[in-house]
Amino acid sequence: MTNPPAQPGHVYLAGAGPGDPNLLTLRAHRLLQTASLILADGLISNDVLALANPAARVLSVAKRCGQPRIAQAEIHTLMIDAARSGQSVLRLKSGDPLVFGRAAEEIAALRSARIPFEIVPGISAAFAAAATLQTPLTDRTAASKLILATAHHAANKPTLDPHPQPIWQGPLPPDATLVLYMPGRDLEVLAHDLIHSGIAPSTPVVAISRASTPLEHIHRSTLEHLCSGDVGPAPVLLLIGHAIQPA
Amino acid sequence: MTNPPAQPGHVYLAGAGPGDPNLLTLRAHRLLQTASLILADGLISNDVLALANPAARVLSVAKRCGQPRIAQAEIHTLMIDAARSGQSVLRLKSGDPLVFGRAAEEIAALRSARIPFEIVPGISAAFAAAATLQTPLTDRTAASKLILATAHHAANKPTLDPHPQPIWQGPLPPDATLVLYMPGRDLEVLAHDLIHSGIAPSTPVVAISRASTPLEHIHRSTLEHLCSGDVGPAPVLLLIGHAIQPA
Repeated sequence: MTNPPAQPGHVYLAGAGPGDPNLLTLRAHRLLQTASLILADGLISNDVLALANPAARVLSVAKRCGQPRIAQAEIHTLMIDAARSGQSVLRLKSGDPLVFGRAAEEIAALRSARIPFEIVPGISAAFAAAATLQTPLTDRTAASKLILATAHHAANKPTLDPHPQPIWQGPLPPDATLVLYMPGRDLEVLAHDLIHSGIAPSTPVVAISRASTPLEHIHRSTLEHLCSGDVGPAPVLLLIGHAIQPA
Repeated sequence: MTNPPAQPGHVYLAGAGPGDPNLLTLRAHRLLQTASLILADGLISNDVLALANPAARVLSVAKRCGQPRIAQAEIHTLMIDAARSGQSVLRLKSGDPLVFGRAAEEIAALRSARIPFEIVPGISAAFAAAATLQTPLTDRTAASKLILATAHHAANKPTLDPHPQPIWQGPLPPDATLVLYMPGRDLEVLAHDLIHSGIAPSTPVVAISRASTPLEHIHRSTLEHLCSGDVGPAPVLLLIGHAIQPA
């Protein structure tokens, strides 16, 4: 088995997983230990960054509540300039980089600049949440579909999008588990919208915050009783469906 | 960071990821190196098993085409008896153990036998496929939902289930990517069923076989032109939707 170090002039777009450093892949871990520049999203845990090569430069390129502290174009410039100057660049995103990670713009920028890059998948939060809950996300009896969706645009930034898409339309298939990433702060409105779109009010919901980390927080409810209190600190993940009921 | 070895009397239900050993998590890797008994699904790659503790006993509990070489109840007995006799047992499943892994029965058996167990998430094939394709599975413009489903029961074993659920009902949401695990052998029938259920015939499809391994095989098509030839050896994963088109 070979797991080569980060190469000069290359960019690595890698998932850091849900927060627990033990859930890094061997590949991401190797890149953390060998990259010369690390550009980390705001949600990357300190425990993960503690594994970086001590000689590496680590920059946080965090965004908060949609307000960039650093513009997306600046991230592109940082990545590309560093690779061109012969650095090895690890662009670290929480979870998996290709799910709700807004990787498309960064991939397009790297292609356009002809920078060689590698994508390394990571454990997305839904899977860490299920492992913590010890609950299958699909099941031969209760769920044969897993739907990962985001409520970010619909619930969080209504004023920025004049025609927001609904998160879901129609009833949830009876054999589906729906996982909502970035459900926003107003869970009562969100639950109302989901019920209005056709999902049964009695559908079980688990709100889980920071799965796999020491700050993990679990709140069990149903869609009709989901309220904005007591679901734990952001980022919260909502698991909705009959498969996620406790055994 | 602590990553304790496998403990005597415990069972670890862990994902081995898509096949590339570098995509194991640090946790699964540690358990592979320290468990005394490893019960591996048939799809676990030799490159992954090569990382096991040389003193460990490694048993394949493969099923092929739904025909068990070993009955599910026997797997339960093996796990539970070994744990009770003081062994540390790693139950290794390909991808993530809680998605299409039929973990529910094994979790129920472990709970019923009061065996302490830990679940370790793994990289599911959809994410490895996306990394290989360098294609976001969700995108702000083309896809805000990722749907993981299986066609196993519907397409592969019609005679065993008198009332199979359709894989999908109605049109695919325009902003969704659908990933089908275990699509079965007759992709023409599958494509016909999906079109009949409401998905547009021109929808892009990528069939990907053994993503992340040296045997990886990629076949690009559309739903209406998807045929059973040339999609590579099983297991095949189908990615369906507008987000997965080449850039």
